[in-house]
This record gives sequence, structure tokens and C-alpha cells, in this order.
Amino acid sequence: MESIRVFCPASVANVSCGFDVLGFCLGPIGDEMVVHKSQQKGIRITKIEGQNLPTDPLKNVAGVAAQALIDEHPVSYGFDIEIYKNIKPGSGIGSSAASAAGAVFAINELIGKPYNRHELVQFAMAGEKLASGSAHADNLAPVLLGGFTLVRCNDTLDIITLPSPKDLYASLLHPKIELKTAHARAILKEHITLKQGIQQWGNLGAFVSALYTEDYELLSRAMVDKVIEPARAMLIPEFESIRETALKAGALGSGISGSGPSIYALSKGKTQAQKVSQAMLNATRNLAIDVDIHLSPINQKGITILETK
Amino acid sequence: MESIRVFCPASVANVSCGFDVLGFCLGPIGDEMVVHKSQQKGIRITKIEGQNLPTDPLKNVAGVAAQALIDEHPVSYGFDIEIYKNIKPGSGIGSSAASAAGAVFAINELIGKPYNRHELVQFAMAGEKLASGSAHADNLAPVLLGGFTLVRCNDTLDIITLPSPKDLYASLLHPKIELKTAHARAILKEHITLKQGIQQWGNLGAFVSALYTEDYELLSRAMVDKVIEPARAMLIPEFESIRETALKAGALGSGISGSGPSIYALSKGKTQAQKVSQAMLNATRNLAIDVDIHLSPINQKGITILETK
Repeated sequence: MESIRVFCPASVANVSCGFDVLGFCLGPIGDEMVVHKSQQKGIRITKIEGQNLPTDPLKNVAGVAAQALIDEHPVSYGFDIEIYKNIKPGSGIGSSAASAAGAVFAINELIGKPYNRHELVQFAMAGEKLASGSAHADNLAPVLLGGFTLVRCNDTLDIITLPSPKDLYASLLHPKIELKTAHARAILKEHITLKQGIQQWGNLGAFVSALYTEDYELLSRAMVDKVIEPARAMLIPEFESIRETALKAGALGSGISGSGPSIYALSKGKTQAQKVSQAMLNATRNLAIDVDIHLSPINQKGITILETK
Repeated sequence: MESIRVFCPASVANVSCGFDVLGFCLGPIGDEMVVHKSQQKGIRITKIEGQNLPTDPLKNVAGVAAQALIDEHPVSYGFDIEIYKNIKPGSGIGSSAASAAGAVFAINELIGKPYNRHELVQFAMAGEKLASGSAHADNLAPVLLGGFTLVRCNDTLDIITLPSPKDLYASLLHPKIELKTAHARAILKEHITLKQGIQQWGNLGAFVSALYTEDYELLSRAMVDKVIEPARAMLIPEFESIRETALKAGALGSGISGSGPSIYALSKGKTQAQKVSQAMLNATRNLAIDVDIHLSPINQKGITILETK
């Protein structure tokens, strides 16, 4: 195999009750990446389309993640990376995770698959660290493994794949303002009340149970975040009213996607999700900001190979 | 039916990673309670054996819980309650929950079962409130419903029954000192760090997942409490060394049962659990406190009827 083209999906982290631990993978939204073997050793970013991002591999999340992989598994050749970026950085749907995961996944295929998808997370973390200042696996895990994932421990990368009810659809509203993860993280307080904590782990436990039992009503009741969302809501124009509109239109739950500004909603069934998406879009009509809306099933596969040569 | 005799099992709350939300029901350890219909209206505690507890129904958790039930569902007769107490109050294995649940369960049977087991939790909560000052369902839920339970929300009593892997056995070491729940609660700080919270909900999510998938290794990794245990450990003589001993002997995990002083361990398989129980007992050899040790499978049924007349 001399070159590979991969689809690097977007993802939603936090998912209301699972700050820093829960995430799921999106379907049709994502980047493409082409990686060619090269006789020249090392990593080069030869092309970036769609977004204005650094081509210096030391300043690009894909470059940094790729380097982390070949540092651990040296090879006698190098790699030229082309990035076709559809996910806008700072939109809250895992732009850096898609790039970091894409690079390590593609290179792993080109060098004969020495690592499994779980093992690739550790290398992609280097890219996430460059992007947000701290390395979290809550977007990388669903991008690499697909479906819903839980990061039990970020230090040891103890990651669990959870079941994804097939009838679940996500609506993603992207207000076109950029929100840096590092900034959204900086406004969080270091302490929470024990009461908030108890609510949060009660809800997360219930959410995990509901994924196994496909109990959509329980899933809905568990999609509550009294810890992070109240602090971050102020960063996103009209967040509360958009969320309320999604719920009134029949969404199971709605909240901030990752660190925002994108707002996600989960619905049971595609028709219901379409109704929710439309309602969310309507709720932004008087907003002086451009928005995008996407509808997606839960992507069970994660990152996929589109073509190899 | 004129009278009923019920078995009111002990239970373990918190279970390391699930403070105030998680609990499981124990098997052979528990109280018995006999309730007779009486022509005289109201609730009377006519006998208490095994422990020195108030017979005034307004000061006894069984009496208060029973009264809460008949306040909601008045009947033209009354009830005489006999309590045969094997669970020591203040031992951390749900003594008050067993009494409160026993009374409402027995009376519900005698009045023709107007409520299901889930619905009985609300009445038993009145008894728990008398016992500990605040009403929590994390012991009541497993006693009434059996197996592992999760209290998603204590205010709305949104309670979920979780699966219980059949190979799971609990060791319960009871150092015979009394620890009031209200006291063990008072030493907790009102705030925790966000980092502690993330660890806790990551672990709880993993624990719930492991119950569904019967992944004993994951269960073991998730049985961590960096939030409550460090504060409460000092209340229990040699807690750390007993816990360490249980883990070294092969327990999946070990921690404080409820608010202590009992220490629980979970093991895979009865033989392993016997080894762990013995090791925990040996670890207390130089302790100037009497101890009891119990071994129990997870009680899938919860409270049961022993006899009716």
C-alpha cells in the first residue's frame, strides 16, 4: 500500500452528563485525509483545503500525532499528508480529534497495522494536546472506535465502547463563531459542589444503563448537566432558547457539543430528528450569526478507509 | 391474610464509585419482621429482639415508614409489628433501610398490594429520614428491588435496576464500633474538585457498563473512590490495611460499606470470596475491636415473604 484516503468523522464529546468522559461519533460530517508514503523520511503536510491551518507539521495536530506514532514505531520512509477539512476548528465537534485520529489511523495502515484502534488513541493524544493545551480522549475515542465511548481514565486511556441504540439520531447546530477549547475550559471553576457531583454521576450511570437497555425515556431523563453547561452557556448566543426549542420539538435531550459553540440534540428516529433540526434552525432566525445544521445517525464504525493504492 | 413474616436483607450502599446512588442487596444477612393486622387502628411496635431500639412508633424507622404508607392509603384496621433485628444499627449495611423497607413491604402485602416495589420506596424514605436526618434511597432501593440498583435522582426517586453478574460475591467485615450516618455525612466537605468529579463519574459509568457486560476486570478497575473514602477512612480503624489485604487476596475491589464502619469487598466466585473474607479477618487480628465477617452472594430478589397466615 502506497497511499490511503480515509474519512475522519466529527464527534460529540461530553454529551451533557459525561463531561470529559463520554462521546459519540457522527456520520456524514467529517474530513478526508490522503496520506502517501514518501522516500523522504519524516512527516510533511503537503496540502490543506477547506480551512486555513498551519502546514508546519510541528504546529499541525495531524503532523504532531503522526510524529508521535513514528517516534514509537520508526520506519525507513516518510509520509506526505493532504488534509481536506470540512470540520471547522473551534466548532465543538472534534475538529482536532478528526485530524489527529486520521493521521495516525492512515499511517498505521500504511506501515502494516502494528497497532489496533484502541492503541492508536495514545498517539493521537499528542495532536489533541497541541490543539487544546490538555490532552483528552473524549473525542478521539469515538472517532477511532465508533459509536458511544466512555473514557474511564484519561491517564491510562482506559476506554470502553458502549452500545449505540440504532434509532438514535443527532442534530448538530453550528453557530459560526469560534470558541477555543482552552478558553471554554478556562472559565470552569476548579471546584463543584458534592451535590452537583452526585447528580452528574447518577445521570451518567443512568445514561450508560439506558444505552444497554435502549430505554429512550431514561436516556432522556439522564441528559442533564448542572455542572458544566451553566458556566459555558453564556459563551453561546441563545443557547438556552435553542436547547428549549429542541426539547419542545421532541428531542430526547440537548446540550453543548464538546466545548461549544455547536449545540447537539439527540432524537429517537430520523423523522423526529428532522423535526428537531428544523426547529433548532428556526430558533436561530433572529440571530445575527450564520448557522449550519447537520443531521446524523450515530456512526458505529468510526474512521473508515475510502481508498487505498 | 392476617399476618406476614418477611426477611429484610442487609445492603451495601455507595460501592466505592457510586456515592449516594449505587447499592446492592445482600443475601443471608438480614432482619425478620412479623406484622399482624389488628382491629385497633394505627401502628404499634409490640416487640423488638436483638437490638435495643425504641418501641415508640414515632421514634422507630419501621413505625415511621409504616405510618407514611397508611397515611397515603388509609385502612380501617391497624398493625402490630414485631422486629427481630440481626443487623446492628450504625454498622453501615443498611439497618434502618431493612426495617423501613420491611414494614412498608409487609403492610403493603396485608392491605392487598396497592403498590409495587418501586412505589414502596417513597414510604420507606420517611424511615430513612428519621434514621439519618436526610432521606436517601441508595440502601432502600436494593432492599426492595434486589440486585444492584442506581438512584438516578433521589428527589424524584428515579431508580434503575442494574444487572447483577451471578459470579459476584461480597465479603462484609464489621468492626463493632457504631458510626452514625449523620456523623459520617457531617465530615464530608460541601465541595469536591472538578477533577475528582470526573474520575468518579468515569468510574461509575464504567462500573455500570461492566455489570451489563460481566467484565470483571473493568468492574475491578472502576471500584475506586477518591472523593468520599479519603475523608471517611479515618473513622474506621485500619481501614486502609484491611482494604489492601482484601485486594492482595484477590478481591475485585473493596471499600467502605455505606457510611461505615463495615468494609465490603467484591470477588469473582465463592472460593475466591472465602479467601478474601479470611484474609480480611486475619488483618484485624491485632485490632482491639471485635469483628464479624459475612460472605454473601448478591441477593437478586430483595426482601422476601417467609410466611403468611
